[in-house]
Amino acid sequence: MNEQNVLLEAFNKAPVKLAGHGNRDIAVLTEALSEVEGSLASDMYGAGRVIGEFEAEMAAVLGKESAVFFPSGTMAQQIALRIWCDRKGSRQVAYHPLCHLEIHEQDGLKELHHLEPLLLADPNRLITLEDVKQMGAGTACLLLELPQREIGGQLPEYAELEAISAYCREQGIMLHLDGARLFEVLPYYGKTAAEVCELFDSVYISFYKGIGGIAGAILAGSRQFTEESKIWKRRHGGDLISLYPYILPAKYYYRQRIGRMAGYYEQAKELAALFNGCHKVSTLPEVPVSNMFHVHFAFSREQLAPVLIRVYEETGIGLTGRLKETGEASCSYELSIGDLYSGVSRPVLEETFRLLDARLREI
Amino acid sequence: MNEQNVLLEAFNKAPVKLAGHGNRDIAVLTEALSEVEGSLASDMYGAGRVIGEFEAEMAAVLGKESAVFFPSGTMAQQIALRIWCDRKGSRQVAYHPLCHLEIHEQDGLKELHHLEPLLLADPNRLITLEDVKQMGAGTACLLLELPQREIGGQLPEYAELEAISAYCREQGIMLHLDGARLFEVLPYYGKTAAEVCELFDSVYISFYKGIGGIAGAILAGSRQFTEESKIWKRRHGGDLISLYPYILPAKYYYRQRIGRMAGYYEQAKELAALFNGCHKVSTLPEVPVSNMFHVHFAFSREQLAPVLIRVYEETGIGLTGRLKETGEASCSYELSIGDLYSGVSRPVLEETFRLLDARLREI
Repeated sequence: MNEQNVLLEAFNKAPVKLAGHGNRDIAVLTEALSEVEGSLASDMYGAGRVIGEFEAEMAAVLGKESAVFFPSGTMAQQIALRIWCDRKGSRQVAYHPLCHLEIHEQDGLKELHHLEPLLLADPNRLITLEDVKQMGAGTACLLLELPQREIGGQLPEYAELEAISAYCREQGIMLHLDGARLFEVLPYYGKTAAEVCELFDSVYISFYKGIGGIAGAILAGSRQFTEESKIWKRRHGGDLISLYPYILPAKYYYRQRIGRMAGYYEQAKELAALFNGCHKVSTLPEVPVSNMFHVHFAFSREQLAPVLIRVYEETGIGLTGRLKETGEASCSYELSIGDLYSGVSRPVLEETFRLLDARLREI
Repeated sequence: MNEQNVLLEAFNKAPVKLAGHGNRDIAVLTEALSEVEGSLASDMYGAGRVIGEFEAEMAAVLGKESAVFFPSGTMAQQIALRIWCDRKGSRQVAYHPLCHLEIHEQDGLKELHHLEPLLLADPNRLITLEDVKQMGAGTACLLLELPQREIGGQLPEYAELEAISAYCREQGIMLHLDGARLFEVLPYYGKTAAEVCELFDSVYISFYKGIGGIAGAILAGSRQFTEESKIWKRRHGGDLISLYPYILPAKYYYRQRIGRMAGYYEQAKELAALFNGCHKVSTLPEVPVSNMFHVHFAFSREQLAPVLIRVYEETGIGLTGRLKETGEASCSYELSIGDLYSGVSRPVLEETFRLLDARLREI
């Protein structure tokens, strides 16, 4: 077993975890179904009460005319960009170099839709209004991800977002929101989902990030846009006869957790401060703007893993099972606060971080 | 309410239905999950025990090196054809004019993959060896659907199938099986799934036809083929973080129903004979070769619907909620025998068809 597997095993063994909502096991689904009548009819290829009511509810939450449930965000977002490109008769879209479509989708956007992405900004910073102003006029659509996950979940200030939106409207560039973690940033912005979405022409949200459902996504916009998206959903093979196994948990966990986002955000700030108090540890962002952040260690994985394992064993608290190498003597991991965090008492937390700090100073 | 809605309502009200496995409601999922441990871990983006074990089981059943679970057959089959075309450096595939890809997928194959289908045979008959021999050498792949659903679920004789397979191998044309209803035809052929699949280079099977699961499909072939299919699955947005809500029911209902296919087939022949004994009613095929067939009426929908409604009310037996217009004075519907049929006694069946015949003669 290599060092990384040993770390993962020690993490899995730790009785208490700080991040997330808990294991992704079958009970997540059975709990969501426990109060649903067995006689409730399945959706049928996008039609029926189960899907229609949830789509209508989400359209209202997002302040859009219409919404469509998709099995995945990968599918929903490629389709959104394709629709805007077809409408403008252009193949160019613009997004961040670490956009999900660029690094996690096996180039589906290029291979299936033949769209040509323009990468805005440096990978390690947010897209600014200045970047946007330097796009060519041929760009059909700009995709913004709020928060920008791969750089720790950073956010532009709201005024900058408004300015980007105003500029795009002026230039006839469609603005699409990758809102996989939209609900998670609302407490920082102090805005409703509808207020943020008003700045965008189309919006995607996910149900298995902060909401903690099984899978699935909503794509919202004008009715004309969503009707077109349904045709592409069929083409992609996403218009399943039954999507209710994802819709019912999405609805259940949305109700359960939408009111907890402000708490997760406060807890993320608290936890980040504890990390930043440790020797050669820093978080990105330093002060989180949502429930997520990245933890950076100025140690190699080989140096760090044994220390983490010892802390897990001594405290019973698991921090992470994986470390990403970011340099010769540095590594990091991503965390998102969920329901588990509130199960850890403040004294236990403080003792854990006191110990972590002490052990890191011994390296 | 129009005539068609009245028919559907009368059908829904009928306490007994002859076809199918019963309502597609939430209980179908909860039953399948009822004996699964809540602590069983979700699959994660195509990895993990839940998906891996089922894929291995299905690969063995189909006699192929490897198998991949997909959310839909639409996705799986487009991808199969794309892989074969890329390998041959050709854009041409061949299939029946009423192939699922041609009539039910909003042209995904053309719009996403830019493949060019060659339509073999007349719409109202099966593809023959002669048709296959007339394809150009540039055809990368031939898709055969067993049974050919849109013409009542007809099948080529097994010797013809073997001859087509041999010809394709000789010519270097890949042969793909649309086996959405493969298990349903095995009793007629008297073959195992692996024996039939041996004639094909790639195979798709579905879990919500005769098996009666929620959704989902398996694509099987060589390991090189399935590994490539996983890349395309990601590109299509089908590589969901969790597919277990479809996999667990697929496994559950496969075990429950795979042994019943021969019974469904015998019952389909029995029921078709009853239809064929009625005035101006015929089935296609006349003698079914699987659990499915089409029922054709030499009456207009407007003439027929009131008669059917009266029979449903008088007998409590519902035949269909929908009729497809096939001409000025003809209509039809499709049926597939499932678990419900064995709940109807022979005397009740005979009385129903005696009454149907009598009422049809009164038109």
